[in-house]
Amino acid sequence: MNRFGPSVWHRFSSTSSSPTFVAKPAPAKARHHVQIPNTSFPHGYSLTGVHCGVKKNPSILDLTVILSTSSKPASAAACFTRNAFKAAPVLVSQDVLEKSAGRARAIVTNSGCANAVTGKQGLEDAWAMVKATDALLPKSEASEATHDTFVMSTGVIGQNLPISKILSGISSLVPSSLGSDFAAWERAAKAFMTTDTFPKLRARTFSLGGQTFRMAGMDKGAGMIHPDMGPPTHPSQLHATLLGCILTDAAVSPQALQSALTYAVDRSFNSISVDGDMSTNDTIVVLANGAAAGETKEIEEHDPLFPAFREELTSFAAELAQLVVRDGEGATKFVTVSVEGAPTFTDAHRVASKISTSALVKTALYGEDANWGRILAATGSVPLSTPIDPYRVNVTFVPADGSTPLPVLVRGEPELVDEVRAKEILSEEDFEIKVDLGLGSECAQYWTCDFSYEYVRINGDYRS
Amino acid sequence: MNRFGPSVWHRFSSTSSSPTFVAKPAPAKARHHVQIPNTSFPHGYSLTGVHCGVKKNPSILDLTVILSTSSKPASAAACFTRNAFKAAPVLVSQDVLEKSAGRARAIVTNSGCANAVTGKQGLEDAWAMVKATDALLPKSEASEATHDTFVMSTGVIGQNLPISKILSGISSLVPSSLGSDFAAWERAAKAFMTTDTFPKLRARTFSLGGQTFRMAGMDKGAGMIHPDMGPPTHPSQLHATLLGCILTDAAVSPQALQSALTYAVDRSFNSISVDGDMSTNDTIVVLANGAAAGETKEIEEHDPLFPAFREELTSFAAELAQLVVRDGEGATKFVTVSVEGAPTFTDAHRVASKISTSALVKTALYGEDANWGRILAATGSVPLSTPIDPYRVNVTFVPADGSTPLPVLVRGEPELVDEVRAKEILSEEDFEIKVDLGLGSECAQYWTCDFSYEYVRINGDYRS
Repeated sequence: MNRFGPSVWHRFSSTSSSPTFVAKPAPAKARHHVQIPNTSFPHGYSLTGVHCGVKKNPSILDLTVILSTSSKPASAAACFTRNAFKAAPVLVSQDVLEKSAGRARAIVTNSGCANAVTGKQGLEDAWAMVKATDALLPKSEASEATHDTFVMSTGVIGQNLPISKILSGISSLVPSSLGSDFAAWERAAKAFMTTDTFPKLRARTFSLGGQTFRMAGMDKGAGMIHPDMGPPTHPSQLHATLLGCILTDAAVSPQALQSALTYAVDRSFNSISVDGDMSTNDTIVVLANGAAAGETKEIEEHDPLFPAFREELTSFAAELAQLVVRDGEGATKFVTVSVEGAPTFTDAHRVASKISTSALVKTALYGEDANWGRILAATGSVPLSTPIDPYRVNVTFVPADGSTPLPVLVRGEPELVDEVRAKEILSEEDFEIKVDLGLGSECAQYWTCDFSYEYVRINGDYRS
Repeated sequence: MNRFGPSVWHRFSSTSSSPTFVAKPAPAKARHHVQIPNTSFPHGYSLTGVHCGVKKNPSILDLTVILSTSSKPASAAACFTRNAFKAAPVLVSQDVLEKSAGRARAIVTNSGCANAVTGKQGLEDAWAMVKATDALLPKSEASEATHDTFVMSTGVIGQNLPISKILSGISSLVPSSLGSDFAAWERAAKAFMTTDTFPKLRARTFSLGGQTFRMAGMDKGAGMIHPDMGPPTHPSQLHATLLGCILTDAAVSPQALQSALTYAVDRSFNSISVDGDMSTNDTIVVLANGAAAGETKEIEEHDPLFPAFREELTSFAAELAQLVVRDGEGATKFVTVSVEGAPTFTDAHRVASKISTSALVKTALYGEDANWGRILAATGSVPLSTPIDPYRVNVTFVPADGSTPLPVLVRGEPELVDEVRAKEILSEEDFEIKVDLGLGSECAQYWTCDFSYEYVRINGDYRS
């Protein structure tokens, strides 16, 4: 029944046509999945991705198990969503982190079902995944009260896990099912995927104090991607903007690892947006098992090597975070929003976030329209610690190829914009929007994508 | 130049097709423009809408002039955008309101050019429009220092007004060019329009203390529609979410009128969203000229008639505000978001705003998908004065035809949803999303629309 009577809906159909829309060709995203030399992966980790049956199609992987094979438990740190409706795996992983005093040895993840808004059954299922994975590990001295495994789930909200399938998938794993080469890491990353169009896996070597270490990580996410903006005050309140894990064979104390991760997340996963929506499952886990040959002493926060490690973790986290924006649902653009001249980092971060989530800015990006008026309106809508002086604000489009930037607003006055040059810059897949507030010396960066017809299609019939 | 070399963009094209998307038939919006009996319009106003040349097409009206013909200046009140980049007409109208001690006699409005981010020239142009309209009025006793006219502009940002065309348009008006019947009010409302698909005009009679009064108003807006959420603290800081004016022949003191408008705006124009973007020009002006026959004494805030007048203004403002959502760019749905059981009005208003602006919720509305998980994720992402207890939250879809509501979440546990019934409700143009937080007794309503392919098309090539 239609409030105007059933006939009216017919009238709608007859009085208006059904227009069709032709999308621009989208960039080929698969090229962001790259081959990685086996030597780049951290020592002392054994992992795999398998199909256990959460997803119908048997050729699609849906279960990831990552074990630290180092003799002693790895240092662990994590960031969790601040959403009030934390999914069961988030609550369970928070509990594991707190009870284990920052030590853990495994991560288990399923895709296809988020185990969110699933009540007491959901908590039991998440704990069952933890215990089944604990059982794969050699007995630890740790008491029965503590657990060694973090659990993460991603997928549809409000449905219970097919837990028996998941548990038999975990318990059927034998040492030979797991590996440590590129193929094994790739399988693990593939089992993270939901609406992702390519697995998100990266690895690198880095040196601290003349010694070489390795860091590898994977993440997933293409939609429901946006952080809140408050600084973390306690581990159980931390949040991130998607599902991911970072594994390193450096030795870092749990406190130093959490401190470095908190710093890194604010400048990476907390600085990306696809659609401005915060998930109930966002989790980032980091393990540091100290398995690098010859390495023993754990880096502490006061250690002179700590800042270098923190920078390494931050730039690596940013690399993983940017892959999510690259794969943003329906995205055809990868846009860096840089806000400079802000009174505080928080002010800069809030303005960058507002520009990055503006539907009008994002549709203009899709239309390759240098509509700086929308950028300005978004900028001006954010209350800052120091009021904006319109006559100090500069807005510039910066091409990614290093050619000359295009100022569109200088000290609050619009420039006579060369529309041809503007179109040239905005027709690229990558470019930067730079906003200088002229109020201070702080800055922040955000990475965002455009809003396309494809975005509407993907999310207009997500469940059908 | 593409950072990957020019060849790559070709590769994009070849590696991916250009899919086409077929939109649903959109509701016929023209039916929201209705005939209004001449007797409903307030006494003592004379107005028109003409074509002065801001817009190219000579058949499209772009200039509105509204005069209060009452012997003494009308009481005036206004709300302005909080955007830091206030357009010249906003700054000028704020100045007029403050210097005139809440008395005014005219409103001049142009569409087609917003006169925003236009520097000193923009201010001169806005003042020129004020003075040209002042000149249409009989000399007032007011000193040269004060002005009688509010000015509003809407359209593209960053371009200067064709001021000579506007000024000759104003000065060419003679008393006979203006009228007070439906046709005159309709012309005035049509000249407000930009991307609007129908003129937004309403009028009503109401009685206070046994006497009959009239109220009429018009507004415009279809995109860049969203308020910020701080309560107004000073008239010059007030804001609204679009361009509009309300004229009444009741007699209300300037202070009482501003107080009533502030209350009304929070529950009307501050409670709608099309795209979550706040404009640089948002302005709502109210005039009360006391021209109703026999009426003399002005209603003061302490007057027993004041609450009734405030309620009348609030419900009328809500009626005008909802017309903007009806005409939301690309909108096919009109959705009421009701948040109940909140600790404070502000908490309820913030949650309703977040749900109403969520890209995932709005695309699901377009897809007629009862995706309550997205509603929950949006709800949970708002930090409240009292933390949300997931096991107290209820979410219900309420059909507009009065038939049985459909609970989808009860005390934090998902219901087994009858998808057929859900589809039935969501296939309507109008329905309500009700979220009960179970935390308190405060509530707030928001009105929003969906995100469609058409929204992307309209805003993807706004200037082309």
